[in-house]
Amino acid sequence: VQEGWSGSLDLHVELAGGGGRRAGLERALRAAIRGGRLQPGERVPSTRALAHDLGLARGTVAEAYAQLVAEGYLRTSPGAPTRVAAGLEPPPRRADADPAPDEPLRFDFRPGVPDVGAFPRAAWMRALRRALAEAPDRALTGGDPRGRPELRAALAGYLGRTRGVLADPDRIVVCAGYTQALGALCHALRDAGVRTVGMEDPCLHHQRAVAASTGLRVAALAVDGDGAQPDALPAAAGAVVLTPAHQFPLGATLAPERRAAFVARARDRGTVLVEDDYDGEFRYGRQPVGALQGLAPDHVVYAGTASKTLAPGLRLGWLVLPERLLEPVLAAKRVYGDTQVLEQLALAELVRSGALDRHVRRMRQRYRRRRDALLTTLADRAPAMRARGIAAGLHVVVDLPDGVREDDVVARAAGRSLAVGILGPFRHAPAPGDPQGLVVGYAAPPEHAYAQAVVALGDVLASAP
Amino acid sequence: VQEGWSGSLDLHVELAGGGGRRAGLERALRAAIRGGRLQPGERVPSTRALAHDLGLARGTVAEAYAQLVAEGYLRTSPGAPTRVAAGLEPPPRRADADPAPDEPLRFDFRPGVPDVGAFPRAAWMRALRRALAEAPDRALTGGDPRGRPELRAALAGYLGRTRGVLADPDRIVVCAGYTQALGALCHALRDAGVRTVGMEDPCLHHQRAVAASTGLRVAALAVDGDGAQPDALPAAAGAVVLTPAHQFPLGATLAPERRAAFVARARDRGTVLVEDDYDGEFRYGRQPVGALQGLAPDHVVYAGTASKTLAPGLRLGWLVLPERLLEPVLAAKRVYGDTQVLEQLALAELVRSGALDRHVRRMRQRYRRRRDALLTTLADRAPAMRARGIAAGLHVVVDLPDGVREDDVVARAAGRSLAVGILGPFRHAPAPGDPQGLVVGYAAPPEHAYAQAVVALGDVLASAP
Repeated sequence: VQEGWSGSLDLHVELAGGGGRRAGLERALRAAIRGGRLQPGERVPSTRALAHDLGLARGTVAEAYAQLVAEGYLRTSPGAPTRVAAGLEPPPRRADADPAPDEPLRFDFRPGVPDVGAFPRAAWMRALRRALAEAPDRALTGGDPRGRPELRAALAGYLGRTRGVLADPDRIVVCAGYTQALGALCHALRDAGVRTVGMEDPCLHHQRAVAASTGLRVAALAVDGDGAQPDALPAAAGAVVLTPAHQFPLGATLAPERRAAFVARARDRGTVLVEDDYDGEFRYGRQPVGALQGLAPDHVVYAGTASKTLAPGLRLGWLVLPERLLEPVLAAKRVYGDTQVLEQLALAELVRSGALDRHVRRMRQRYRRRRDALLTTLADRAPAMRARGIAAGLHVVVDLPDGVREDDVVARAAGRSLAVGILGPFRHAPAPGDPQGLVVGYAAPPEHAYAQAVVALGDVLASAP
Repeated sequence: VQEGWSGSLDLHVELAGGGGRRAGLERALRAAIRGGRLQPGERVPSTRALAHDLGLARGTVAEAYAQLVAEGYLRTSPGAPTRVAAGLEPPPRRADADPAPDEPLRFDFRPGVPDVGAFPRAAWMRALRRALAEAPDRALTGGDPRGRPELRAALAGYLGRTRGVLADPDRIVVCAGYTQALGALCHALRDAGVRTVGMEDPCLHHQRAVAASTGLRVAALAVDGDGAQPDALPAAAGAVVLTPAHQFPLGATLAPERRAAFVARARDRGTVLVEDDYDGEFRYGRQPVGALQGLAPDHVVYAGTASKTLAPGLRLGWLVLPERLLEPVLAAKRVYGDTQVLEQLALAELVRSGALDRHVRRMRQRYRRRRDALLTTLADRAPAMRARGIAAGLHVVVDLPDGVREDDVVARAAGRSLAVGILGPFRHAPAPGDPQGLVVGYAAPPEHAYAQAVVALGDVLASAP
């Protein structure tokens, strides 16, 4: 398939067997259509282009097309391209090929997702347009495992200003989301001799899987109302993943003396502290809670993400690394792949222009209103249920009264097309006697439906046995 | 930091110590600037916004700012936001913090990169705009490990039409580039009990590292002028990665009888064949070479990428999987992370609109002209050097005459600010006696400089001892 006219389509055809070139072409096209390689509705090239590509006379191709139209394989209509006919028996597909239509729940209170309906599409489009207009050609080759310098410079300023992170752009590694960042980090820790990583219990279950996939052993670290307990960290743990600003999922803030204790442990024994600052931008009181990293930048790996401030679908996250971990993480990241370039440049532009700050402030107000409405409804409709972890973030934990099981609430909610998170899956080793609790994410429902959603949730909880 | 006015910046400030609120604020700001958290040139919030955030009187903040201006920490100018002053001593940085300015080589003939200067920026922008306008909110949450259905449907048609791949959209998994795709695949193979994967020798060195990172043993598979040798595949190999259309780097096309032999081995012994179709769209003769996958879709994993047709910086690749590998790969991919959503939607739009076909055809013509110019120059200037693998792709291999070492050519080229690939690093176990050869990628130089670049390369090769 060579030369050809630009403007035409590519079609892969293997001419084989006897009977002349026209017959060979017809056979090849029939086989491609029957076999499903050419699917119903798909355009085929113009006779002129295909003839050129295959080194055939144009008339030969036209005759073959006409024959296939006559046989019902192709269809033509005046002024439109020739296409594969729709009425043919489809190729064999998996029995369950068509997944259930992607029907949304009526109300989704599961944690972990922001209000993507508020994603600043116009600002993002402007930032992308500028990024695409200004990106040097070389940027499009990717190949910088640390990420684009424009974004690292912008993040260094932003993280210092908003989160108290001491971020040298040269020690930032931009990743294709937190999952990739954690994978590359665990990989590097393992290569550096770490065997065991402590993870809060409960914690995001997915991150246990990521760490385990790199060969690390995951040790449970107990959590209470002051956050993770430093004394409970096993001696074997060469690293520990913490959520100091807003423990996930319980919502506690890591107490100052515990921050100090973790830092002391890191200084004394070389334990690497990984600070997962997944929702640090969203804090509703006046008590500031800066990043742990600012206290001990040589011992703390700071991990941030655009998933909560913008949208998880962007897949952008970042690590701010102590000097000694920079090269090992870069080496490990190579096997996870580079980070998409244009969206890095767009995010840099969003930070530089102040549009990200504006968006975060707007969303902080919105989420606080949502939280308040949720707490009011809980107090009214289900006063026996206490909400925790309310000072920050995009979710609260609701303790269930004695005798009420998480699974029962989930089932009752599902009956009303409503989904809610529960604590069980976040525990390292769930047991029947565990205190039961809901994890209510209040960011996911779209804004216009939020009031109604909270009423529906109140109904579910008020009807708890 | 609560409420606040949208439109303002966020600033993390911890008020601590005695001496009143104004003194506390001054101390906190000084520390942030001295410590590098607030960097020179960074804007600080308006007095009004910061006062509101911290629950201070606006006058208190204004006085603190005035004091810091007087001390040289901040600077103001009429009508402009207050910023951190530029003249302060910078925070300590790594000695080698500023990398060498990203000075491009004059001419880059290393393989693996297309002509990103021809990236269809306008078409991509149109596709992105449409994707962003039409994406349902839910798409922005990501969370579909297979990738967006719009792109999977578009790819199924495109791959069937252009590469002869039998691609059911339900068996396509869109990944954040080939590296991630190969990582998730190797992970799944390992979990399915595969211990050893065969890889062509020579092959892309990076992919050996990716496979090894998942715990697989990599076995070398000999290659000759007919491509990989089926008889040389160790019995222990439960999978093998092949480049049937254009062996990387040697450029052979896998011979028909060898295709059949690999498929037979897969049928008889369950060996998984991985088809890395990295540059399959670029073929210059009239001999079609369809995907191996079309012969045995139940045994071949087809892997494709946008890196050569568009740009590596997009980080988009895909796997077409046999039924039995779909769930294992999806499970493995979860620990590598989801794939960025908006660029998936943009690529789907580019395929649907025919713009990708047009771009590929245009580039195919361009690359063929470049290849021809390169071969002509080689024949003129260095007739002792034979070029191989010229029928397809974006690179050729140039065999060096006896006594000429790869490293010497690289050094001589570097002296003229010219880079060229060599075979050595692609060999599994390079040895002093290996035949010496260059791997000349002719896609990377920008179009306007290509003629000059080829002349410079000719000079380097003509001066070979």
